[in-house]
Amino acid sequence: MSNTPNKQLPCQGESHVNWKKRKAGVKEALKQKKHAKTVKQLEKEKQKEEAKKNEISEQTQTDAGRQYTVSVALPGSVLDNAQSAELRTYLAGQIARASVVFCVDEIIVFDEQGEDVKSVEGEFKGVGKKGQACIQLARILQYLECPQYLRKWFFPKHQDLQYAGLLNPLDSPHHMRIDEESQYREGIVLDRPTKQGKGSFVNCGMRRDVRIDKPLQSGLRVTVKLNKKQSEESKVYKGTVVAPHVPRTEGGLYWGYTVRLASCLSAVFTESPYKDGYDLTIGTSERGRSLDQTPLTPFKHLLVVFGGVQGLEASLDADQNLDVTDPSVLFDLYLNTCPGQGSRTIRTEEAMLISMACLRPKINAAFSNNTHEILKEH
Amino acid sequence: MSNTPNKQLPCQGESHVNWKKRKAGVKEALKQKKHAKTVKQLEKEKQKEEAKKNEISEQTQTDAGRQYTVSVALPGSVLDNAQSAELRTYLAGQIARASVVFCVDEIIVFDEQGEDVKSVEGEFKGVGKKGQACIQLARILQYLECPQYLRKWFFPKHQDLQYAGLLNPLDSPHHMRIDEESQYREGIVLDRPTKQGKGSFVNCGMRRDVRIDKPLQSGLRVTVKLNKKQSEESKVYKGTVVAPHVPRTEGGLYWGYTVRLASCLSAVFTESPYKDGYDLTIGTSERGRSLDQTPLTPFKHLLVVFGGVQGLEASLDADQNLDVTDPSVLFDLYLNTCPGQGSRTIRTEEAMLISMACLRPKINAAFSNNTHEILKEH
Ligand SMILES: C[S@@+](CC[C@H](N)C(=O)[O-])C[C@H]1O[C@@H](n2cnc3c(N)ncnc32)[C@H](O)[C@@H]1O
Ligand SMILES: C[S@@+](CC[C@H](N)C(=O)[O-])C[C@H]1O[C@@H](n2cnc3c(N)ncnc32)[C@H](O)[C@@H]1O
Repeated sequence: MSNTPNKQLPCQGESHVNWKKRKAGVKEALKQKKHAKTVKQLEKEKQKEEAKKNEISEQTQTDAGRQYTVSVALPGSVLDNAQSAELRTYLAGQIARASVVFCVDEIIVFDEQGEDVKSVEGEFKGVGKKGQACIQLARILQYLECPQYLRKWFFPKHQDLQYAGLLNPLDSPHHMRIDEESQYREGIVLDRPTKQGKGSFVNCGMRRDVRIDKPLQSGLRVTVKLNKKQSEESKVYKGTVVAPHVPRTEGGLYWGYTVRLASCLSAVFTESPYKDGYDLTIGTSERGRSLDQTPLTPFKHLLVVFGGVQGLEASLDADQNLDVTDPSVLFDLYLNTCPGQGSRTIRTEEAMLISMACLRPKINAAFSNNTHEILKEH
Repeated sequence: MSNTPNKQLPCQGESHVNWKKRKAGVKEALKQKKHAKTVKQLEKEKQKEEAKKNEISEQTQTDAGRQYTVSVALPGSVLDNAQSAELRTYLAGQIARASVVFCVDEIIVFDEQGEDVKSVEGEFKGVGKKGQACIQLARILQYLECPQYLRKWFFPKHQDLQYAGLLNPLDSPHHMRIDEESQYREGIVLDRPTKQGKGSFVNCGMRRDVRIDKPLQSGLRVTVKLNKKQSEESKVYKGTVVAPHVPRTEGGLYWGYTVRLASCLSAVFTESPYKDGYDLTIGTSERGRSLDQTPLTPFKHLLVVFGGVQGLEASLDADQNLDVTDPSVLFDLYLNTCPGQGSRTIRTEEAMLISMACLRPKINAAFSNNTHEILKEH
């Protein structure tokens, strides 16, 4: 059993037997040496030491994890700005890659064209140059996020994905190669019979399937935490199912993004998957205030919103739930992330890379111990 | 004649006559009023005032202009990373746009594949998926930089430009629309007969041609500074030819980039168009030092170098003039511009936007009066 923090805690129950054995051994020595008191004290000290170690481990573990999330939102209409069906697909790929490079946890695709609700939820009917942009963008984003070895199950051939061959891979940490070692893996619950009281089998893209702790419905996508110690002889690996946020919150790993469709700009805010919504919201615009002099405060859930070809003003106009006209009032911060730009207009996919590149050090600074220092700097 | 600084200085020589006239007029008044001394003093005061005005104007002018330059270099081989001929073109466009958004003055395309020197200077022979990447990238970059109204002259139909229709426009300040007012314009010297002692005609993409101060060879691309005052009746505008850097150094405008081909990585440095070369050089790599804690010092000519699919190590390997293996020794700074990246690899075109986005505020800081403050911050 390794000493790493993650493992020690859940395994202590199991290893009680060893503790007892060790204790027995110690007692044997005690009898032999007739120094009962000394040894008991030693034992106590040992236990204290162990407890302290565990405490530190727990702290380290929390330090390693990332507790905050970053979401980005953009209108699906950006796809309509592409000049061919291939470039439409490529643009979706650029958005996925920009999100992954900056460890974005959620991408929200909102409708700014009053597309029929049906079109947001329905099937995409063909790859054209225009139309049904939201659902197509969402589908390509989901396709790219899914580890390659799971795609054949979750993404059977589909017209939206006609040009998927042109997409650049995301190469994110949860896209594991077959022999890569990792504490966590994404998998699909298999339709493989399990014995009474035993958990299901999961395909995690490894040479052997993984038996998890619970019986689950086949076809589900799950996040699996693999046991540290695996039997060399067994035909399966062993692991437990964990919540999808665990690789991030406990392992400190970037674990891909979820995709959410919003029927209008306001739904981006109101339908947040986080209980108390987003606690720091940033709108982006060349008409915003310069980001350079703007530090960020710590947050739980950051939301960064981008506009389409006509900017966030147009997204606002299209939203019947919002009767303001100035987009800046919707956000905590309304930022120009590229003061002095040499082009009259920056495209949304460019603005994503630029804005996130500038926000990254500010996010880090907000969570560093020197927050106070940084606030003073500005 | 307007009062703006640009105009006053070059015109003083010509207007000596007027000065004398004014003096004569003043003397006449003097006679009439018989207050010789007082008036002389007044005159002196006036001259002093005028001189002060000029001084301030000169200062303002220098403040408005940008004296430093920014160059970026990348291997042409990046094009070979594209998955179709269309995407090859699109990638070149992304590089052009990234450069323009961040006001890059020079793009250097270097050969890291030992392409035959001929292929760097020769004709591109067809749009395929591979090969002759340097010259094709350079040609597309030049095509995009050229104002639309000049393209028919400088870029006749060419195979490299087969998919030029897919390219997003740069929308930079020197890409003027027909009726847009601007002190400077790019133009082509026309093959139109001029009278003895008169300057050539230039097409600057306006409703009338421009008569410049000098006779120049037809077909030349020139930067024209238009006279402030233009006659409404004249069939032509009037202007003077200026060096291409003048819109930047005097007007403070971003005026597009030049493109340079380099036969290897070392030629990027040694064949600099600037007399004393680049005085601040930055190499980029995920293995570099974090940019976050690295302030920039003021410079005259900044060079930022990007690698291709295999990074700058590969560019170095391919260069027979360099016998070092660690790219960091080539540069003043070797920087990771995206610490904590969520993808195993960042593509060159993405790294350009990300790196320049992070460098932008640091460049500004280096030239702000608070340089001292900023150095203290880090
Ligand atoms: C094509 S631009 C929108 C241009 C539109 N004409 C406008 O004035 O807003 C698309 C999106 O890119 C982002 N963007 C463009 N330039 C930006 C800048 N300088 N700072 C921050 N975001 C920018 C914004 O989210 C914008 O809505
Ligand atoms: C595809 S990457 C090269 C990857 C290559 N495997 C390596 O290890 O260098 C292409 C170029 O993007 C730039 N780049 C990628 N990631 C970067 C980072 N984190 N910081 C700075 N530049 C980066 C560098 O110029 C690099 O040469």
